Amino acid sequence: MEGIDYHDGERSKAEFDVEEMKIVWAGSREVFEVSDRMGRLVASDEVFRKDNRTMLSRKDLFKNTLRKAAHAWKRIIELRLSEQEASWLRFYIDEPAFTDLHWGMFVPAIKGQGTDEQQQKWLPLAYKMQIIGCYAQTELGHGSNVQGLETTATFDSQSDEFVIHSPTLTSSKWWPGGLGKVSTHAVVYARLITDGQDHGVHGFIVQLRSLDDHLPLPGITIGDIGMKFGNGGYNSMDNGVLRFDHVRIPRDQMLMRVFQVTREGKCVQSNVPRQLVYGTMVFVRQTIVSDASSALSRAVCIATRYSVVRRQFGSQNGGPETQVIDYKTQQSRLFPLLASAYAFRFVGQWLKWLYMDVTQRLQANDFSTLPEAHACTAGLKSLTTSATADGIEECRKLCGGHGYLCSSGLPELFAVYVPACTYEGDNIVLLLQVARFLMKTVSQLGSGKQPVGTTAYMGRVADLMQCCCAVQRAEDWLNPSVILEAFEARSARMSVACAQNLSKFANSEEGFAELSTDLVEAAVAHCQLIVVSKFIEKLQEDIPGKGVKRQLEILCNIYALYLLHKYVGDFLSTSCITPKQASLANEQLRSLYAQARPNAIALVDAFNYTDHYLSSILGCYDGNVYPKLYDAAWKDPLNASVVPDGYQQYIRPMLKQQLRNARL
Amino acid sequence: MEGIDYHDGERSKAEFDVEEMKIVWAGSREVFEVSDRMGRLVASDEVFRKDNRTMLSRKDLFKNTLRKAAHAWKRIIELRLSEQEASWLRFYIDEPAFTDLHWGMFVPAIKGQGTDEQQQKWLPLAYKMQIIGCYAQTELGHGSNVQGLETTATFDSQSDEFVIHSPTLTSSKWWPGGLGKVSTHAVVYARLITDGQDHGVHGFIVQLRSLDDHLPLPGITIGDIGMKFGNGGYNSMDNGVLRFDHVRIPRDQMLMRVFQVTREGKCVQSNVPRQLVYGTMVFVRQTIVSDASSALSRAVCIATRYSVVRRQFGSQNGGPETQVIDYKTQQSRLFPLLASAYAFRFVGQWLKWLYMDVTQRLQANDFSTLPEAHACTAGLKSLTTSATADGIEECRKLCGGHGYLCSSGLPELFAVYVPACTYEGDNIVLLLQVARFLMKTVSQLGSGKQPVGTTAYMGRVADLMQCCCAVQRAEDWLNPSVILEAFEARSARMSVACAQNLSKFANSEEGFAELSTDLVEAAVAHCQLIVVSKFIEKLQEDIPGKGVKRQLEILCNIYALYLLHKYVGDFLSTSCITPKQASLANEQLRSLYAQARPNAIALVDAFNYTDHYLSSILGCYDGNVYPKLYDAAWKDPLNASVVPDGYQQYIRPMLKQQLRNARL
Repeated sequence: MEGIDYHDGERSKAEFDVEEMKIVWAGSREVFEVSDRMGRLVASDEVFRKDNRTMLSRKDLFKNTLRKAAHAWKRIIELRLSEQEASWLRFYIDEPAFTDLHWGMFVPAIKGQGTDEQQQKWLPLAYKMQIIGCYAQTELGHGSNVQGLETTATFDSQSDEFVIHSPTLTSSKWWPGGLGKVSTHAVVYARLITDGQDHGVHGFIVQLRSLDDHLPLPGITIGDIGMKFGNGGYNSMDNGVLRFDHVRIPRDQMLMRVFQVTREGKCVQSNVPRQLVYGTMVFVRQTIVSDASSALSRAVCIATRYSVVRRQFGSQNGGPETQVIDYKTQQSRLFPLLASAYAFRFVGQWLKWLYMDVTQRLQANDFSTLPEAHACTAGLKSLTTSATADGIEECRKLCGGHGYLCSSGLPELFAVYVPACTYEGDNIVLLLQVARFLMKTVSQLGSGKQPVGTTAYMGRVADLMQCCCAVQRAEDWLNPSVILEAFEARSARMSVACAQNLSKFANSEEGFAELSTDLVEAAVAHCQLIVVSKFIEKLQEDIPGKGVKRQLEILCNIYALYLLHKYVGDFLSTSCITPKQASLANEQLRSLYAQARPNAIALVDAFNYTDHYLSSILGCYDGNVYPKLYDAAWKDPLNASVVPDGYQQYIRPMLKQQLRNARL
Repeated sequence: MEGIDYHDGERSKAEFDVEEMKIVWAGSREVFEVSDRMGRLVASDEVFRKDNRTMLSRKDLFKNTLRKAAHAWKRIIELRLSEQEASWLRFYIDEPAFTDLHWGMFVPAIKGQGTDEQQQKWLPLAYKMQIIGCYAQTELGHGSNVQGLETTATFDSQSDEFVIHSPTLTSSKWWPGGLGKVSTHAVVYARLITDGQDHGVHGFIVQLRSLDDHLPLPGITIGDIGMKFGNGGYNSMDNGVLRFDHVRIPRDQMLMRVFQVTREGKCVQSNVPRQLVYGTMVFVRQTIVSDASSALSRAVCIATRYSVVRRQFGSQNGGPETQVIDYKTQQSRLFPLLASAYAFRFVGQWLKWLYMDVTQRLQANDFSTLPEAHACTAGLKSLTTSATADGIEECRKLCGGHGYLCSSGLPELFAVYVPACTYEGDNIVLLLQVARFLMKTVSQLGSGKQPVGTTAYMGRVADLMQCCCAVQRAEDWLNPSVILEAFEARSARMSVACAQNLSKFANSEEGFAELSTDLVEAAVAHCQLIVVSKFIEKLQEDIPGKGVKRQLEILCNIYALYLLHKYVGDFLSTSCITPKQASLANEQLRSLYAQARPNAIALVDAFNYTDHYLSSILGCYDGNVYPKLYDAAWKDPLNASVVPDGYQQYIRPMLKQQLRNARL
């Protein structure tokens, strides 16, 4: 069985140009080329190997991550990589590390919240990594509720300093990545106190460790918070705990772009609009959506390739058994996830555009689209990360027993991914924000204020409340405008129903609390509509390459009809469709699966992932799964000796009935 | 904040007698007392500590498991524990080990498939652990499809031996627990070949390792298959790989209770009914359902206790923030899982009865109920394990960021639990078996054959096809017969619809393949009905204790209405209920959550879990979460030194701009 390329026959079945699809996936030819180059660079460098990751002890894993980070920085300098190239390099190194926080949070925080002088002082140091920074916001007692943080920064006008202090155990900083063992500096969020008055939470640059010997500075207690989910996973990251005992910093280390404390201890709001903060959130969440499509596509790539190699049951006359990808039960779980990966990719690309648009408007002092953009990105962050976490685990199950082995790559992918559902806004909390925005939108409909952007359809609410789905035959469900109308009507009707139920409460906050589960469902419906509509918009672009557009149409329809089936209760209870139409959608879905089947391998090849990046034996490009699984097993530390350590002490006394006197 | 018992006020809110509920949960006073005693025994024994589990290397973890197993066996002998006590002891030790397979698979296989002589020879050795056995069925290439196994056992009539051989790489035994490093013997499943003829798969007792020095016997290659999901998880188990190179065993080591090979090499089917095998399956799957309720209840206990301790948002006038358990979004995710834990417990207790009933009937040569019992246990195994795996992860998310720490106990609980969705029958494959049985049941309805047991309701199919749900007000949904009828109607209508669609196919197997996703949904509907109906039956028992029955009624209604809401598409598309009735069910559900709220802590206390067994800081009995989290962090190996290993080599050169010449 060795030596055969199990995917070969599959690749030749593809009905479209894979190379063109790679560019569609990447977003542009330029991005494709950079990412392809960086992917190969990482894969060919022995220092970046990760096949041994799950077998290392925490200390060895962490030390190895330090080595990778140093080596990556060395390569970035040697090869004079651009910022974009360096970012792709880190992406393909694929190991959570302190550098993620340094580049992704510390530097942006100074850029966004620091004054020009502060930027001039700190950014050059950070850019050269002469200091390493992290982002110390969450505490043991507070995560989502940032306004409830307890750390204090009390202004001492005599010395012109702030005194940073942790007044309670629950005020200990807890979770910040890079904090535990590496960072020399942090942006610390603390309650600003001047003259006994609390001015809310602000950011402060605090040096944590000596630049000479790396020891914590006086008054500072720091450590790692301990093991996290997964063998490797996020354990390469030093998420940390931090306590302050009256630590003094100069006044000019408060980030003062929007709010200033003068030499006299007076508080001054600057004329920089506070909304800038939302712009940053749009940026961060936009990258999270893009990461979701990466993580999901990776899991889907593994499960798809293995589903072609794996055969089980169905042998006829001694012939080969059926490839598990040919079972409808497998297709109905796998192909919607394949379609979701593409859907999230495109909505992520659109969010990039949205961020640029918002930024340009902000520079022109136009804040009109900001609330909608903020709600939209919050909702999409929630939707895509939840679906991706569930999707990765589903892919693992689709690989049967072997998916449970670390060598499948899927357990680690899951463990390292799931925090995305919690960080940067718990997914349920975010959906409630979306719901709040939707209720506001509905309530303003009568006032003549036209909803914009992704809520524009609410402007047609009168039509949407009474439209009838036109589907009569299964094929009618292939019509994008039919799909769009069904999703718009469902979302509009759910939002309106919530608004009506809310109006029955005397106290609207009480109503909001009481109906919060319904509101979450309405928010989900709205967010799904956004993803579907952005996929449909993508199809209206000029897409070159033989058969590429056709494949995307199939995927778009699979995504939409899969959602329609999964949430059919929404569509039926709002009378957007009839039971008969639901059944026709299901019928059409089966036919779409059959159309996707021959293209499945090529559709995951289009992600252009190296075997190094996938780090999955089940998903390896050549499909030679079984010999590789077999060979990998022997590398486990337990196999270093034939007779296991502990045999003499524990197994032998048991077998020889000599336990009674044994000291165990 | 230290020193306060965070749960104290909560426990006094309970409206029922927790001690009585503990007995209901255990199933009987006797079982409660035994399990309680064993739980304390394990918790008080330093050898069984597991708080360091996730920090050990694979080798240390494994060695420690050997130690625990030897110590447990020693205690079992010293204290002269009964079989039941020993089994509870192992349950509370709560670490997958080779003993699970020895007692749970190897011994039962010999009991079930061995002749009287074979049992007399092998069982005493196994009972004293003079030999340690495992169950070598699955191979690299075959899991679900047992009939596709490739290992051969060829009869050599000259020497009166079987030659056990692994003809291909994919025929390597793969996954058996206890095989990799510990077992001296295995029941090996292999294709029986006599005179060149293949007689299908049978079991053979094969010695693997020398009883003198534990080395593999000639012709045998064994090892561990490597790291699995999670830090500790199943990595304490030596799941193994095994290859045979023409290994000879005496003829009398084939398990010959139902099928014999004579000295001359003739094959003889014994008069022992083959259906006995199904009896064993009912037994094994019954224990899996019971394990599901244990695992889910554990996760729910952790999430419920922490949801009471955790406060976030909602502070008024500087008072404490809102306990997160008071948010409806939290309740709507947590309480259905609490109700599911109870539901699975009761259906598990009923399955124990079913197994006894089937066994008695088998002994009286009554096979009539076996197919139904088999379908029912297959379906319940699938339903409960899938819901539990998802439920554990949901509980982890309900604990916010801190649920991602290993010290929460939830990551390990998930990692160690998920294989239950795959082993002993992949959950989707099992649902297809249920669907096949349902289709057979429907097809026989016309023939006058009355469906039995859990399918008895199908006998009233004519009524169920046209009944109308009587609900007019939200309270009507509290009526058990209303709930039952809705679930019966939904299940019957989905099965009938599938049968009608199947009949349109000329080839019924093709139809079954094409419609398999619909069939899976019909099977799920049927299985949910079973769980709901067994919960309702439980309520008709005489349940003592103040308020206990009332609480169970609330939980039963939560479970049923939560399912109704989640699968509302099924109920609406089959016109079992109207959109208005669905909305009333939702309204009733909210009111039930409010009723469950004050009892939440007491309802999880009733599981009677020790802090040792839970091994979760978030779920600790006294609720003193934050100080414990803080203290535990410092025990991580990374905190052994203030400056991390690797600082001199990797961090300092980066900070000092000396990377260019560094050797990394």
